[in-house]
Amino acid sequence: VAQTATPITSRDNQWLKRFRAALAGEHEQDGVVGVEGLRLVETALHSGVGIEAMLVSDSGKRHLARLESSVSSDRISQVRVVHTTDRLFAGIADTQAPQGVAALVRPKAAAIEDLVRGTALVIVLAAVQDPGNVGTILRAAEAFGATGAVTCSAGQLGTANPFSPKVLRASAGSALRLPILRGVSSTILFPQLRMLGLKIHATIATAASAADGAPFSPRVLQPWQADWKSPVAIVIGNEGAGLPEDVLRSADALVSIPQSRTAESAGFESLNAAMAATILLYEAMRQRGA
Amino acid sequence: VAQTATPITSRDNQWLKRFRAALAGEHEQDGVVGVEGLRLVETALHSGVGIEAMLVSDSGKRHLARLESSVSSDRISQVRVVHTTDRLFAGIADTQAPQGVAALVRPKAAAIEDLVRGTALVIVLAAVQDPGNVGTILRAAEAFGATGAVTCSAGQLGTANPFSPKVLRASAGSALRLPILRGVSSTILFPQLRMLGLKIHATIATAASAADGAPFSPRVLQPWQADWKSPVAIVIGNEGAGLPEDVLRSADALVSIPQSRTAESAGFESLNAAMAATILLYEAMRQRGA
Repeated sequence: VAQTATPITSRDNQWLKRFRAALAGEHEQDGVVGVEGLRLVETALHSGVGIEAMLVSDSGKRHLARLESSVSSDRISQVRVVHTTDRLFAGIADTQAPQGVAALVRPKAAAIEDLVRGTALVIVLAAVQDPGNVGTILRAAEAFGATGAVTCSAGQLGTANPFSPKVLRASAGSALRLPILRGVSSTILFPQLRMLGLKIHATIATAASAADGAPFSPRVLQPWQADWKSPVAIVIGNEGAGLPEDVLRSADALVSIPQSRTAESAGFESLNAAMAATILLYEAMRQRGA
Repeated sequence: VAQTATPITSRDNQWLKRFRAALAGEHEQDGVVGVEGLRLVETALHSGVGIEAMLVSDSGKRHLARLESSVSSDRISQVRVVHTTDRLFAGIADTQAPQGVAALVRPKAAAIEDLVRGTALVIVLAAVQDPGNVGTILRAAEAFGATGAVTCSAGQLGTANPFSPKVLRASAGSALRLPILRGVSSTILFPQLRMLGLKIHATIATAASAADGAPFSPRVLQPWQADWKSPVAIVIGNEGAGLPEDVLRSADALVSIPQSRTAESAGFESLNAAMAATILLYEAMRQRGA
């Protein structure tokens, strides 16, 4: 492992600034994001994403041995390691009890073809704004065998950056392993997915909105009525507004997760976006026979 | 509506202290918890839980009309309303952008018989420690027609208070509507549930732990292999440790949610407790035909 000298030099200071910005989720212009904690750093080393540098505090040093034994030595020997004190690390880290290891990584840019393998299962996040929801959805996507994910905007709303520190943590590393296509609009995306043989299944939150949808589409299905065995994309909308009407109109099927009558009459708010996506991804896996 | 006079009197100050403690999730010795925000206060008024008092700020006053029109006037006229300034309310509230309405409520204490109606579906939280997970599980429980919930400890670990402000928010009010039994141990609970005709389905997190479980039980089922049409209790364990061995041994069936082979070989961490519970509750509803 190439190590820079302690105490801190002015060159190290430049690195510390980059780590601080990246771990705070600031400006990702150069395509580099910060990951923190033993588990995520290990995931990054295993996943094959580009690693610009690692930051290791005095008490984080004990983790280096574990990382060196679990990752191929070729891989880790090429990574620049910047050392710092526990106090400086705590000031840079975004978490309460930092473990003293962090990395600057360069997530792979996925093309649409990267998302489609075998019987494709693609999850499309259209204006999912809460980082916790985005992370949970990516985690469920990996668990249930999705072949890729797309983050896109819908109407005026965007989707949370899938490589922000909060999303990375909520995804438990899945954001670094799953092919993710970013920054495409649904009007361009849907025809491309269809060209690749996928059907588009759009989700609507509640039975009430299913009824609203009826005038322009009779194809509102319960999850187990929809066909998930063929190549398919699941589109999840914004937490408050759901999916815009043009997306619903252009979908091949609308899927709604029913709720118990007791819940409905009690004025129950619909399931949140992450719970809905988790259920549909599970349903796809169930139909495909694990 | 009975209103106390503004400006603040020393008697009001006593109320403000109680609201501050309750909204911070502090000491619930007297069985009173704090709920904040128009949605949750409305839920509390509708749900029939006891309401000790409402706190309304200057800018929260506009919400009173909505509450008075949506709730029976008998109900709301019996509630003491304490008025305060926006500045004081902001200091008392636990949220970033308070809406200016809060209430002190007394959740109903449920007995085990209250959880079991018709074809019972009971969710048991055994040492689920994260308030967000507890809230999400209660929300899914209500959505999918669970008849009640139990929070209990397992080993040395307890479950987060289902009436804490964080859990109430994450549950979107379901914690106030669903019958919840608290503070019972699994060794007492399971025989009682069986006496009432329920089977006990315990969850294990991963395929790996399913294999670990094999020596003492061959009954590890995938969710869709388990029978959810008969009266049943689903037991969800601690986020890190899962369920203790004595709980697994005494269950009628062990249920494991499978993951894709790709995810497994990539070192995927198992789904979190809330996602697992959501899926099993969905599976129960699916089998029962919504």
